[in-house]
Amino acid sequence: MTSEDIKTHMAMKGGEGPDSYVQNSTYQRGIVEAATEKINEAIANQFDINAFPTSPNPICIADLGCSTGPNTFKAMQNIVEAIKLKYISKGGNSKIPDFVVFFNDQVSNDFNTLFKSLPPNRQYFAAGVPGSFHGLLFPKASLHFIHSSSAVHWLSNIPVDVMDEGSPAWNKGRIFYTNAPKEVKDAYATQFAKDMESILFARAQELVSGGLLALVLSGIPDVMSNSDSHTGIEIDMIGSCLMDMAKVGLVNEAKVDTFNFPLYYPTPKELKALVERSEYFSFERMAILKNQKKHVTLQSPSMRALFLRAPFEGLLVKQFGNEIIDELFDRYTEKVARSSFFLNPEIDKTIELFVLLKRKI
Amino acid sequence: MTSEDIKTHMAMKGGEGPDSYVQNSTYQRGIVEAATEKINEAIANQFDINAFPTSPNPICIADLGCSTGPNTFKAMQNIVEAIKLKYISKGGNSKIPDFVVFFNDQVSNDFNTLFKSLPPNRQYFAAGVPGSFHGLLFPKASLHFIHSSSAVHWLSNIPVDVMDEGSPAWNKGRIFYTNAPKEVKDAYATQFAKDMESILFARAQELVSGGLLALVLSGIPDVMSNSDSHTGIEIDMIGSCLMDMAKVGLVNEAKVDTFNFPLYYPTPKELKALVERSEYFSFERMAILKNQKKHVTLQSPSMRALFLRAPFEGLLVKQFGNEIIDELFDRYTEKVARSSFFLNPEIDKTIELFVLLKRKI
Repeated sequence: MTSEDIKTHMAMKGGEGPDSYVQNSTYQRGIVEAATEKINEAIANQFDINAFPTSPNPICIADLGCSTGPNTFKAMQNIVEAIKLKYISKGGNSKIPDFVVFFNDQVSNDFNTLFKSLPPNRQYFAAGVPGSFHGLLFPKASLHFIHSSSAVHWLSNIPVDVMDEGSPAWNKGRIFYTNAPKEVKDAYATQFAKDMESILFARAQELVSGGLLALVLSGIPDVMSNSDSHTGIEIDMIGSCLMDMAKVGLVNEAKVDTFNFPLYYPTPKELKALVERSEYFSFERMAILKNQKKHVTLQSPSMRALFLRAPFEGLLVKQFGNEIIDELFDRYTEKVARSSFFLNPEIDKTIELFVLLKRKI
Repeated sequence: MTSEDIKTHMAMKGGEGPDSYVQNSTYQRGIVEAATEKINEAIANQFDINAFPTSPNPICIADLGCSTGPNTFKAMQNIVEAIKLKYISKGGNSKIPDFVVFFNDQVSNDFNTLFKSLPPNRQYFAAGVPGSFHGLLFPKASLHFIHSSSAVHWLSNIPVDVMDEGSPAWNKGRIFYTNAPKEVKDAYATQFAKDMESILFARAQELVSGGLLALVLSGIPDVMSNSDSHTGIEIDMIGSCLMDMAKVGLVNEAKVDTFNFPLYYPTPKELKALVERSEYFSFERMAILKNQKKHVTLQSPSMRALFLRAPFEGLLVKQFGNEIIDELFDRYTEKVARSSFFLNPEIDKTIELFVLLKRKI
């Protein structure tokens, strides 16, 4: 699977049907809600409106990896309101500026659904920007606030070594680095570091001096009590279902060997080290968020299946074809029902990381 | 049919299938091509790059009513290149700025298809802006060049009187003002004048001082040799097919009575008077364009049917249901084959109007 394939097939499931991201993103909404307080504090304490040119320039905000809604609307509404509040309370006589929100996601994202569900009473001008956030998406110094939630843990590419039969990082019989040799995990970590570097480089071009970058992504704790074997266990379980299907001839085993999920969950320490490498940003804050909707939204095995299907279906269909998907998620649902992590949700150690960076002058 | 219905259903047919606008817009491409020289002259003579703030501000261009491509890409590429050329030849040491192109159309436009077909080697940042160009779409003074081709002759609303049984402008048994009483035509003209006023008001807010507005729209000559009975004759013919179908019980006649196409073709004199009313713009130029693709692209009756179906199907389906559409266009194709305007294309007097306005300082 090439980088181009990932771009074309990794978008969340479009439309508004029962399998769509629109209908299956309560978990991600929990993350947006958990970040609200941190975003508000960032705007109150680190967003210096006096540093920006005055009107008529609008305040420009971007949401990277916005998907089809509705979570992005909640996040953007909150940012616009917090900045408005700041103008009202701190701006003295300065006029409240216009706002533009740029909704970004891969070209393959369902922008039609996004546009149809834009809040009718929104207080901003809305635009959609198709393209990968691993590259430049906006002109130089054109944005004041960049936000991204549940997106930058997606990789731009599968690490080459994990698909190379001759490499110690060859990930045979698995589709993720969970329960894999250390070399596989290391290859993923290296790709994530490269991606973070591209992301920060591009955002540094796009932000004005003093502009803020707020990233929310999934990760794992710095210290794990019983190794990291439970990270990404659900993706690993999809892999195991695929291998079961390969054994009975429903799936080509070589296709499992060459398929790997482009996701990586860093630790807080790892992420902090990566963002501190950037010469363009000052590191302002990191926090671990509690997703209140984590367990309530994933109460049944079939809810967990839908939760994974909305983001993952595109890539799975590309590799294995459309005809195996229902069976795959049926098998997955059964496997989840019997799994220790489902019976004991505390085993899932995944955390949400909030990191705030400020573009240096 | 309400203004909301029009917004929701008037977008060109999406996707890339045989009935799509993508596959059936060669006629409109001819119009874009016919306008190229005029656009280039406008940029060479009326676009004063020294009047705009220098870098890092990008040059922002919008295409209103862009549809799904590919015509909009041709038009935008040409504008970007012409402005770049101006910076190179006249800008002295000034750096060539970044460019942003905003592709605008109704929310119901197929932006997914538009985004997927964006030219990979484009020299601009691309964004999609959903919404009606009869209202504000962009922040104050944020655009340098606004372009619109084959779009502003669409009305925002059906004139109320033509749907009012008690009015002399009631348009019974027809779906357009062709071959209708003078009152019907007058009601359409009044709606077009109102719409042009809203369009110019909104664009005046969005353009920087010295920014250009280039509109290309269909119209009719100031002087017609044999009344205007051949304007919109093809739309009238769709109406006549609908009435034929009503007579044999395939369509409800009352639905024909309450359906009217939201389009208007002004004369050059009429359009000039309307744009000169605006206090925000100086009138720079008007020209009549020759669409070289006019007759070559519409050589057969079935080509004419596809040409009308791509833009009109959405509204027809909304009023009459999906099930009558194939039959309607079959009947239309037959009627075209026997019509005098098909046998003698010179009867079609429709012209393309180019008008160039400059935002006053």
